[in-house]
Amino acid sequence: MFLPVDEQLDRIRQGAEKIVPEAELVAKLERSAKENRPLIIKQGFDPTRPDLHIGHGVSIHKLRTFQDLGHRVVFVMGDFTARVGDPSGRDETRPMLSEEEIESNLATYEEQLFRILDPETTEIRRNSEWLAPLQLADILRLTSQYTVARMLERDDFAERHRDGRAISIVEFLYPMMQGYDSVALRADVELGGTDQLFNLLLGRTLQERAGQEPQVCLIMPLLRGTDGRRKMSKSYDNYIGISMEAEEVFGRVMSIPDALLDEWLSLTSSARGDELARRRAQAGTDPLAAKRWLAGDITARYHDAEAARRAREAFDRLHRRREIPEDVPEVALSPGGPEGMWIAHVLRDSGLAHSSSEAGRLIRQGAVRVDGEVIADRDLRLAPGEYLVQRGKRKFARISIRS
Amino acid sequence: MFLPVDEQLDRIRQGAEKIVPEAELVAKLERSAKENRPLIIKQGFDPTRPDLHIGHGVSIHKLRTFQDLGHRVVFVMGDFTARVGDPSGRDETRPMLSEEEIESNLATYEEQLFRILDPETTEIRRNSEWLAPLQLADILRLTSQYTVARMLERDDFAERHRDGRAISIVEFLYPMMQGYDSVALRADVELGGTDQLFNLLLGRTLQERAGQEPQVCLIMPLLRGTDGRRKMSKSYDNYIGISMEAEEVFGRVMSIPDALLDEWLSLTSSARGDELARRRAQAGTDPLAAKRWLAGDITARYHDAEAARRAREAFDRLHRRREIPEDVPEVALSPGGPEGMWIAHVLRDSGLAHSSSEAGRLIRQGAVRVDGEVIADRDLRLAPGEYLVQRGKRKFARISIRS
Repeated sequence: MFLPVDEQLDRIRQGAEKIVPEAELVAKLERSAKENRPLIIKQGFDPTRPDLHIGHGVSIHKLRTFQDLGHRVVFVMGDFTARVGDPSGRDETRPMLSEEEIESNLATYEEQLFRILDPETTEIRRNSEWLAPLQLADILRLTSQYTVARMLERDDFAERHRDGRAISIVEFLYPMMQGYDSVALRADVELGGTDQLFNLLLGRTLQERAGQEPQVCLIMPLLRGTDGRRKMSKSYDNYIGISMEAEEVFGRVMSIPDALLDEWLSLTSSARGDELARRRAQAGTDPLAAKRWLAGDITARYHDAEAARRAREAFDRLHRRREIPEDVPEVALSPGGPEGMWIAHVLRDSGLAHSSSEAGRLIRQGAVRVDGEVIADRDLRLAPGEYLVQRGKRKFARISIRS
Repeated sequence: MFLPVDEQLDRIRQGAEKIVPEAELVAKLERSAKENRPLIIKQGFDPTRPDLHIGHGVSIHKLRTFQDLGHRVVFVMGDFTARVGDPSGRDETRPMLSEEEIESNLATYEEQLFRILDPETTEIRRNSEWLAPLQLADILRLTSQYTVARMLERDDFAERHRDGRAISIVEFLYPMMQGYDSVALRADVELGGTDQLFNLLLGRTLQERAGQEPQVCLIMPLLRGTDGRRKMSKSYDNYIGISMEAEEVFGRVMSIPDALLDEWLSLTSSARGDELARRRAQAGTDPLAAKRWLAGDITARYHDAEAARRAREAFDRLHRRREIPEDVPEVALSPGGPEGMWIAHVLRDSGLAHSSSEAGRLIRQGAVRVDGEVIADRDLRLAPGEYLVQRGKRKFARISIRS
């Protein structure tokens, strides 16, 4: 039923930052194959931030790999913390959500997730299931299993403590709750970004203290955003949302700096092995071609091949940037009537044609484009809005028609 | 019903280390008198250590003062923590107790307590009452109200953290639980030793966060033990137990170094005002007389005047130390038969008399004492054991009769 352990390991390793400890993963895969029992792959998710981007997609595709290899994926929704929020009121990243908001966000989340994952082998659990019933005696036992000094080693705590910025004691409990999720699920593997290594290791400690075999931490790199500088995040507006329209996805990939191509090809594309090597080589010699391929590939992964093709065409129509000069004049016009402005008047009033009759002749010659498309209809009227109007190869105007 | 606030304050202040903040205590006393409503005076106690000594008595007498002034005393028994113990297994001061042990220790505790306190205005509560039902959500709210940095300011935590010794996270929860006891009781005043100031102030913080008027912390000094060096503690064997026999109490007070007299007179005796001043002066000029008075006074406080008188007499019989020279010879003797050794043979064989007939004459003259008591019976036989035997004013021998 399962692939040989070596082959599984190759596919799991692909693109991963590190596996802690890899020897334990090998042992788990071997036993799984021998006992014909799938591993439990855990991934946490925050119901207060249901908008996923392709940075999250890196992990989700890795989970898909586990599913393809025959293992089970368990998503743990941190609904318990979202219900409580941050009681100190200091931590803006921990808003309090109502039951309805949580359910609505979960639906949003699932819609995005199942663009990639197989619902059949995906389980979604709420951690309130095992956290809400915990009483003080349980929590004393749990918190006795970890020390203040080790908690203060976590990078963000260490930094805040050093700088004299307040750390509320409740903040020490959150990672312990996350670790306890692994105990409750008896997770074999937990996925997380490089910023999650500490929390994932804490899960190992708590599992060991609970007499369980500790989970393996599979650390995925954090994808840099379209700006090529910071990690992808909605708050930096350098992201590509999983549920964005195909054209938007294609366009945003086309906007990334060439320097990002190598990283994105290996983390976000479907290319593997030889094809990946070829595309990475191409990124060095013809970055535009490599980028166009990547944009199509990513769009197809989150939509489909047909949507990707249409997105590419639309992009080509709208963004022949190399043909448009830098200094296109901008012209604001008022339409003559309620049906918008006649194209011949647009050409005349913007100075692209001397008269409306010359404008008519240019249209007949196929020399007029609006937003990249050749205009054939001499009676065309433009509704209020923004247009890039072009005469021949060289003359452009950015037209704003007032409403 | 209540005494004027000034008079109450004088009696509360007596012997206290500090009152934090005193202005709030004044305000509470004023409101109490105006509304004819007693204050709630909280004192915690540890059911794992039910043996009280007169160091605890310092606080308990202060509680008695509050009762005499018309206020209510609430003892909080930390049964919840005792039930859980220290789950980390590191803290030997937090043993786990069974229900039966807790109840038995509580009975022991009450027996000692009501030697001083009025049961009518004393309430004993178990903190499991409000702590056991707390759930994780409550604990997140509670722990959000205090920071790691402030907790690490507590002397013992600061020292251990600095030395790299482990502090389990659960240890941060214990003082928060103690503070929460004050919230649950709506305490007006909490008593504690100087080592408790941090925890008592934490109670203030939690009460304020819960929208309550914060408690006043009444800090009592820690009494030094009979060795005059370390604080009184059973584990240093420098203590006087509240339930010790009267003679034992008297004897142990007599054993304290003169340098301790001033401190003990003000913290452990019943003397107030002029009498206290007189006794402190006497401690400088005639420390033995002051100590004898103190020993009788302390014995009478925990027993009664008659028991104190008898204890003093017994002490005088046994410990006329000034009459006993430093270099008393020690003599080991074997009894002649199973009924012990005849006193005349004891005197002869120890060299206190030249012959048993001289010994008989000395006894008739009333010149022989055993352990300070004049011997009248010439047929007396001494059982195996240790004795101080005396001839006349000057001749002594420490006799050990073998069994």
